Amino acid sequence: MKFCPDCGAATERRIPEDDDRERDVCSVCATIHYHNPKVIVGCIPQHNGKILMCKRAIEPRYGLWTLPAGFMENGETTAEGAARETWEEAAAIAEEPVLYRIFDVPHISQVYMFYRCGVQGGKFGVGPESLETELLLPEDIPWDKLAFPVVRELLREYLEDCEEGHFPVRHSVISYGRR
Amino acid sequence: MKFCPDCGAATERRIPEDDDRERDVCSVCATIHYHNPKVIVGCIPQHNGKILMCKRAIEPRYGLWTLPAGFMENGETTAEGAARETWEEAAAIAEEPVLYRIFDVPHISQVYMFYRCGVQGGKFGVGPESLETELLLPEDIPWDKLAFPVVRELLREYLEDCEEGHFPVRHSVISYGRR
Repeated sequence: MKFCPDCGAATERRIPEDDDRERDVCSVCATIHYHNPKVIVGCIPQHNGKILMCKRAIEPRYGLWTLPAGFMENGETTAEGAARETWEEAAAIAEEPVLYRIFDVPHISQVYMFYRCGVQGGKFGVGPESLETELLLPEDIPWDKLAFPVVRELLREYLEDCEEGHFPVRHSVISYGRR
Repeated sequence: MKFCPDCGAATERRIPEDDDRERDVCSVCATIHYHNPKVIVGCIPQHNGKILMCKRAIEPRYGLWTLPAGFMENGETTAEGAARETWEEAAAIAEEPVLYRIFDVPHISQVYMFYRCGVQGGKFGVGPESLETELLLPEDIPWDKLAFPVVRELLREYLEDCEEGHFPVRHSVISYGRR
């Protein structure tokens, strides 16, 4: 941030009074502009023992496989956001989403919240951010072509939980190296 | 937002190409500025069957009782944020925080994440945002002087779970009226 979104004057990085970390502070109107972590919401859509996955048509990780997920929007719940992303990326209607997995990814200031869900009618398509989408049997998951570490971790645990038939809400911190 | 934080030119509200909702878009550099939900992190600090609560010294809800909680900061985990707030508001060190409760509050674009924790050494004090803090027995909780609906819901469930000795991660949507 270089300019104040409220008045257009230059901002400066400094520690405001009664605070203990640097913020963007307007040099004219003195408004303090905070920046906070973002929430990524997504689904593990399951149908007849297969998982709906998407091959990314966008950077980063173009051409690699992921689960439908993206930035949570203002005014929606985490479940609504996860269902929206499933619709946008895989043209599938998320059925009965249930919160399943939370990851903290502090070095990029993100919190991931993933839902388990069904795929209404088993129907899906290819959204504009996907090259292709597919309902994959566990043995067909392209482990060496996954887009993100959270996706690998999530799928590994999910398949274990499927064998147990038990899906506790899990939470952990992911600390993959800064780039 | 009225001005572009990147270049200082006026922004306009419009739906960018390939999008489906209005954003703040710079009229000069065309940067799209997204606004996303914020995460509130907090603790239910427990010591010898008592809960550490804070009487608010700030608006909103000045003078009403709450649990230590506040906006998650960039670069920290949800657990670190919850512990930081417990330190800032009640000068207590959160011991072994475990994720316990998630609330979606969509009409104010917030997600709450609360941790159960102990109070190291049973020591606490009064942070600058609190008028007073107290370790309260369940029967001494001021139910008619609580600051927020989420605090009421959280305490009610927590006390029930304490009786059961069982603390599943809970998740729900809170839709208290828009003000």
